[in-house]
Amino acid sequence: MLENKNQEKTDLESLGEFGLIDHLTQNFSLTQKSTLKGIGDDAAVLDFKGKKTVVSTDLLIEGVHFDLSYMPLKHLGYKAVIVNLSDIYAMNAKATQITVSLAVSNRFSLEALEELYEGIALATKMYAVDLVGGDTTSSTTGMIISITALGEANTNEIVYRGGANANDLLVVTGDLGGSYMGLQVLEREKEVFKVNPNSQPDLEAYSYIVERQLKPEARKDVFELLNQLGVHPTSMIDISDGLSSEILHLCKQSKVGCNLFEDKIPMDPTVISACEEFKMDSTLVALSGGEDYELLFTIDQKEFPKIKGNPNLTVVGHMTAENEGAHLISRNNSKIPLTAQGWNSFAKHN
Amino acid sequence: MLENKNQEKTDLESLGEFGLIDHLTQNFSLTQKSTLKGIGDDAAVLDFKGKKTVVSTDLLIEGVHFDLSYMPLKHLGYKAVIVNLSDIYAMNAKATQITVSLAVSNRFSLEALEELYEGIALATKMYAVDLVGGDTTSSTTGMIISITALGEANTNEIVYRGGANANDLLVVTGDLGGSYMGLQVLEREKEVFKVNPNSQPDLEAYSYIVERQLKPEARKDVFELLNQLGVHPTSMIDISDGLSSEILHLCKQSKVGCNLFEDKIPMDPTVISACEEFKMDSTLVALSGGEDYELLFTIDQKEFPKIKGNPNLTVVGHMTAENEGAHLISRNNSKIPLTAQGWNSFAKHN
Repeated sequence: MLENKNQEKTDLESLGEFGLIDHLTQNFSLTQKSTLKGIGDDAAVLDFKGKKTVVSTDLLIEGVHFDLSYMPLKHLGYKAVIVNLSDIYAMNAKATQITVSLAVSNRFSLEALEELYEGIALATKMYAVDLVGGDTTSSTTGMIISITALGEANTNEIVYRGGANANDLLVVTGDLGGSYMGLQVLEREKEVFKVNPNSQPDLEAYSYIVERQLKPEARKDVFELLNQLGVHPTSMIDISDGLSSEILHLCKQSKVGCNLFEDKIPMDPTVISACEEFKMDSTLVALSGGEDYELLFTIDQKEFPKIKGNPNLTVVGHMTAENEGAHLISRNNSKIPLTAQGWNSFAKHN
Repeated sequence: MLENKNQEKTDLESLGEFGLIDHLTQNFSLTQKSTLKGIGDDAAVLDFKGKKTVVSTDLLIEGVHFDLSYMPLKHLGYKAVIVNLSDIYAMNAKATQITVSLAVSNRFSLEALEELYEGIALATKMYAVDLVGGDTTSSTTGMIISITALGEANTNEIVYRGGANANDLLVVTGDLGGSYMGLQVLEREKEVFKVNPNSQPDLEAYSYIVERQLKPEARKDVFELLNQLGVHPTSMIDISDGLSSEILHLCKQSKVGCNLFEDKIPMDPTVISACEEFKMDSTLVALSGGEDYELLFTIDQKEFPKIKGNPNLTVVGHMTAENEGAHLISRNNSKIPLTAQGWNSFAKHN
């Protein structure tokens, strides 16, 4: 729906591949010292001057990862970038460059792609990364976006998933479950719109969670904050698939167990009220919701004074010996095994 | 057709995303010194030790870039990798790592993806690159492959498109037009198969050109040869879109003109006979065919003795002042302007 809102549309075929890339990328400037050559050759050339190079990539498919009936293209462009940058920050590295490949069917106009690239441009500006390459092609159906993000870090700065130790504190940034509940609201409005296309949705009460879904941010600020505080996590991951799944990744790769305390999981009041409205368990939403793009990390207990009281960081549990397993300690103090598919497994316990 | 040939098929959904990635990548080992961390964290970690990092990316869509009715999945995996490596060699850089993202609809079985990854694995082995990351997801229709390739080079080794000078010699590797004519043969057989599914195509006479289409190689050997010969091209590009289009890229970015000699364009006898059979002009096929993945480069005339007589390298013309434009000098010595769409423009001249 949204991609067709322009009154005057320009056919993509009238530009050709090279004209299209030139047009869409003309307003992108290079700002990173490490970018020697961006778009316009067989490959980009980067200079990390002895630092390590960090690389991550994501593929986003229309109808699987996004729904253009409620996702404005500008937001989609922005979100596609930050999803990838989030992976770079989760390595405790500085994000520096991205490449963007795009496949679109002929139902998209030039003006629609300009909107998408406006969002991409805004993200590159906000996060100070350079667009250095990509590929533009036609698709048989819908839109496909593939982004690769690059970053840099010194060896001793890089944080892997596998470094957590028993007794380390488990810390989460921001709050959880918002993106998932925002999606529930948008899906409900889509159903309403199908029945009555003249309905004007009033989403003001849901603005926080809808924004968490449509325009999430990557925690560049936390990457910088940890640096300022002199906190070096022992392990780190970004929360794209829900807290439960990410904790299990840290446990598996660090060969440790974990106790997660239900009453510590940070949630915005809007998320809790939306859960009540949709008759969903807010803990399950935080555990399995996904797409929050917060960071989850572990620190040695000695580091605790450095983060104590910081409103961006919440201690939600601690790591244990591997043979103790990974558990949620519920509000009524029962010990429930964490599983990657929180919804199914919890159904058995509650 | 080919993706369904297995008798016993395993549903992708039975594995889940993480199980699938683990399964498909279990036989990949890391061999590059520059790979510190491959698959299994938020990002790969690479160490180019002060060398420059070179990055290129490509998106391949079923129905646009490949047709599984005649492209075996193993070949597709192989080709998807070498298409990207070709861009790295075109920078005169050593290819070192790739990431592979894959989206597939539920019509693909696990066994089909195993075939695809066999081809990817073979390419990583033949070209000595490490698979260090990627993303695996479902698609609403068909298969989508997005590959990013990384490489390394010292500053003085990197060759851009923009360094050619007037009077430089224009050199092409291997021979041209084979991939395009192989495609014509395969398309014809597909039509025959539609009419008579029991027909057994005899492609032996076309084996060279069919292999050029289905299993092309990237010119790692030429990258190494130039290094051994001490030849440093002034500009370079890989031939993915046809000779004509690539020459125009070099001319535009180097601000030079070019004279290309029709009688010098290297073509395999099989290509010429296939052109006769299909009633196509072989020069036009070489100029506009594409997908040969040969290298096109310019060298100072002083370098000529170093490459003289080498069977892999053919001097096809020379660069001129920019205001002289880019031309094909035909066999009957007429001067025809080169254009990116050779077929259309040539129709007017011949």
